[in-house]
Amino acid sequence: MNIAIHPQATVDADRLVALRADLGDVPLITDEAQLRQKSRDFFWFSPILKEELDHCRADLVALPRDRNDLVRIARACARHRIPLTVRGGGTGNYGQAMPLEGGVVVDMGALGATRWVRPGVGRFEAGARMLDIDRTLRGDRQELRFHPSTRAHATIGGFLAGGAGGVGSCTWGQLADRGAVIAVEVLTVEEEPRFIELRGRDALKVMHAYGVNGIITEVEMPLAPWHPWAERICAFDTLEEVARFAHALTAAEGIAKKLVSVHDGRISPLLKRIRPFVPDGKAMVILMVSEPQAPTVEDMAAEFGGETVFARGNEEVEAATFDGQGKLPPLYEYTWNHTTLYALKAKPGTTYLQVRYPAGREIEIVTHLAGVFGEEVLFHLEFQRRFGRVFVSSLPLVQYTTRERLEEIVRMIEAAGAELSNPHTYRLSDAGWKKVDAPQASFKREADPHGLMNPGKLLS
Amino acid sequence: MNIAIHPQATVDADRLVALRADLGDVPLITDEAQLRQKSRDFFWFSPILKEELDHCRADLVALPRDRNDLVRIARACARHRIPLTVRGGGTGNYGQAMPLEGGVVVDMGALGATRWVRPGVGRFEAGARMLDIDRTLRGDRQELRFHPSTRAHATIGGFLAGGAGGVGSCTWGQLADRGAVIAVEVLTVEEEPRFIELRGRDALKVMHAYGVNGIITEVEMPLAPWHPWAERICAFDTLEEVARFAHALTAAEGIAKKLVSVHDGRISPLLKRIRPFVPDGKAMVILMVSEPQAPTVEDMAAEFGGETVFARGNEEVEAATFDGQGKLPPLYEYTWNHTTLYALKAKPGTTYLQVRYPAGREIEIVTHLAGVFGEEVLFHLEFQRRFGRVFVSSLPLVQYTTRERLEEIVRMIEAAGAELSNPHTYRLSDAGWKKVDAPQASFKREADPHGLMNPGKLLS
Repeated sequence: MNIAIHPQATVDADRLVALRADLGDVPLITDEAQLRQKSRDFFWFSPILKEELDHCRADLVALPRDRNDLVRIARACARHRIPLTVRGGGTGNYGQAMPLEGGVVVDMGALGATRWVRPGVGRFEAGARMLDIDRTLRGDRQELRFHPSTRAHATIGGFLAGGAGGVGSCTWGQLADRGAVIAVEVLTVEEEPRFIELRGRDALKVMHAYGVNGIITEVEMPLAPWHPWAERICAFDTLEEVARFAHALTAAEGIAKKLVSVHDGRISPLLKRIRPFVPDGKAMVILMVSEPQAPTVEDMAAEFGGETVFARGNEEVEAATFDGQGKLPPLYEYTWNHTTLYALKAKPGTTYLQVRYPAGREIEIVTHLAGVFGEEVLFHLEFQRRFGRVFVSSLPLVQYTTRERLEEIVRMIEAAGAELSNPHTYRLSDAGWKKVDAPQASFKREADPHGLMNPGKLLS
Repeated sequence: MNIAIHPQATVDADRLVALRADLGDVPLITDEAQLRQKSRDFFWFSPILKEELDHCRADLVALPRDRNDLVRIARACARHRIPLTVRGGGTGNYGQAMPLEGGVVVDMGALGATRWVRPGVGRFEAGARMLDIDRTLRGDRQELRFHPSTRAHATIGGFLAGGAGGVGSCTWGQLADRGAVIAVEVLTVEEEPRFIELRGRDALKVMHAYGVNGIITEVEMPLAPWHPWAERICAFDTLEEVARFAHALTAAEGIAKKLVSVHDGRISPLLKRIRPFVPDGKAMVILMVSEPQAPTVEDMAAEFGGETVFARGNEEVEAATFDGQGKLPPLYEYTWNHTTLYALKAKPGTTYLQVRYPAGREIEIVTHLAGVFGEEVLFHLEFQRRFGRVFVSSLPLVQYTTRERLEEIVRMIEAAGAELSNPHTYRLSDAGWKKVDAPQASFKREADPHGLMNPGKLLS
């Protein structure tokens, strides 16, 4: 976590004037308050990033209406050598959408069309919000395989550029896994911008590159056939019990599931609208399972010592998800990094880490660590399937005091046998297993020859 | 494999006459040739079972038209103490549908209605053939999660009574796994027959009990949402290479798949209609994957040293499957125990074993054994997902000489670290991991108090 504060840098006025002339009637934002708002994402989950990135601000936000506008923006930025940062929903946690050296932020929100849908596959413009995609697919009984807890705001292009897994990963794995993405189209940032189609493994060149090596314009995704998802919350006496249940459930091929999210007993009190359902001090698991299988899941939870404390059928879940109806938002909005969001709001000074465990030792290590840290670290586990096995992605909540103590906590977790990714850096090669591999960096030379895409983001 | 030959036993004439009087207008078969035909299944895959069961013959075959007929048959058999054996499609391999002590064979073929279908679940009469169920579900874009290679003939009730996994198990596991069956309804064989609904884990009481503890009348199954399945055959130089590919593919959560069936280089020459596509001596894998992901799978096969030698899109696969059109039947008809069937026809004296391996050592043990046995044992592996991991179900083809040599081969495979199930027994507690556990035997006392359901099948 050796991160220097980046100097404030903006583009000189002459070049901006020339740029605006080239942009013609492309809609722009120049209002100071909006510029600031459109230059921020959820970086402030990290107190370290908050300190480092709070100053970031675009000189101009461009709102392309179509592909022609986008080409025009890319061409003008290349011509005038002005930094360009692509913005989707602005839901990232590592400053993905924040312009480190100012310049133009390109808001992709209006490029959100569904190009086409066939059984098992669909093609979408990058600015399509994931909830809107799933809304479109509903009539066809298909859906995206997985989405972040920010489904309502996150765009599919932004997710590919900076996301990993999410709700659905307990069945379908993550974005980097083979088969998770069929193709990506990008636009280069050059005087003569080109659209480049990257199919199959080639798509990895621009995935998890935080949008710095080509403007992602369209994505072709495998689709999951829809299940009638129902929600359950089951409460358990201990973290160990609920983790054992969650592991067994995730391992159970016979149960169709979309979410297995485990929280130790100190977390539900931080989630205001969940709190009334969970007995004080109980650990809980938030579940999405196929409705016809919910009774089986409840029986199984009981065998593991759990009690079902909240149940909602598919019809209500869909109403909550797509129409905002019902007493609670969709429960996935209390999982993954939404857990962190609510905890941070309820208890200032909360931040988080990203931990993964060696196969088969997850529960042992988690229960050991829970004993070591006490109130300073609250355990939150997301259960996934990856690499042919159950895979636990842990997002522990940490009561932040100092950078030094955070680093000490990291070392203690590592000493217990777990591996960490650093969510407290905005740079692309600092983040543990999110290291940039060759294709991303070399593709940047092709798609962004002038190095204009959010300079400072990718360490060379 | 200590099996005594069962004495021929039939019911005396007086009791049969009384029975027929009670059956009234229930359709019956009494013709000698048909009685013999309706008293057989695929037991002859085993030379040992062939010797032991070849004599089996019903005294009467009853063809109930509806539930009333079925109640009448159960009541009459109970009243006159006449053995009753339930028959589905007659596609089992262990004499499941064969009346060991004669009496009445009940052919469930006419009780094949779809009761109802909802998203993720359907309820069917036990005599419904699995292909017909899937034909009904097509318009709804749903399907059974998995089926045996005998999908065209096997009934859903027979499958629950004697099946395990099959095509689809590489995603959905097996019948015994939690969540694989939602409910089963059985009819008791008593003077006053009762319908009993067994939901959730209670269904296990009658599953894999070969139909000896209640007449399965209806089943409620979780359904899989349909994918546009495409077929591929990929050829590899060695068994080890193809097995490594198959393992990685089965582990890949990002690829939607229904079949991963591996055959060593000596098997394709035994499959007459597959042979023209596979270069001589090459090992192969037969695949069903979601059509939009087939290019990804071909790329992956190439990385593992394989070459795609046969490809068929979803439209052709559906035409072959449901309408019998095209140059080849659906490829799943060359996998699981259909491989054994074709090998047995091409090379008399072929039989098979059922082997499973400790996790992670499958490929090591298989390649070791392939070297040890030479031409006597040909390796056929079916890749599944079970218990949260990749699971290899092996059905090696064995050139049969004597019972002693077969037993020696079994010991050699066990010595290499694998575990066997014995497919050469018709009794319910002889077959390795197919041991009867308590619920099945104790439920028999409730559902079949007079011990009339295929006596001799369940060892007490």
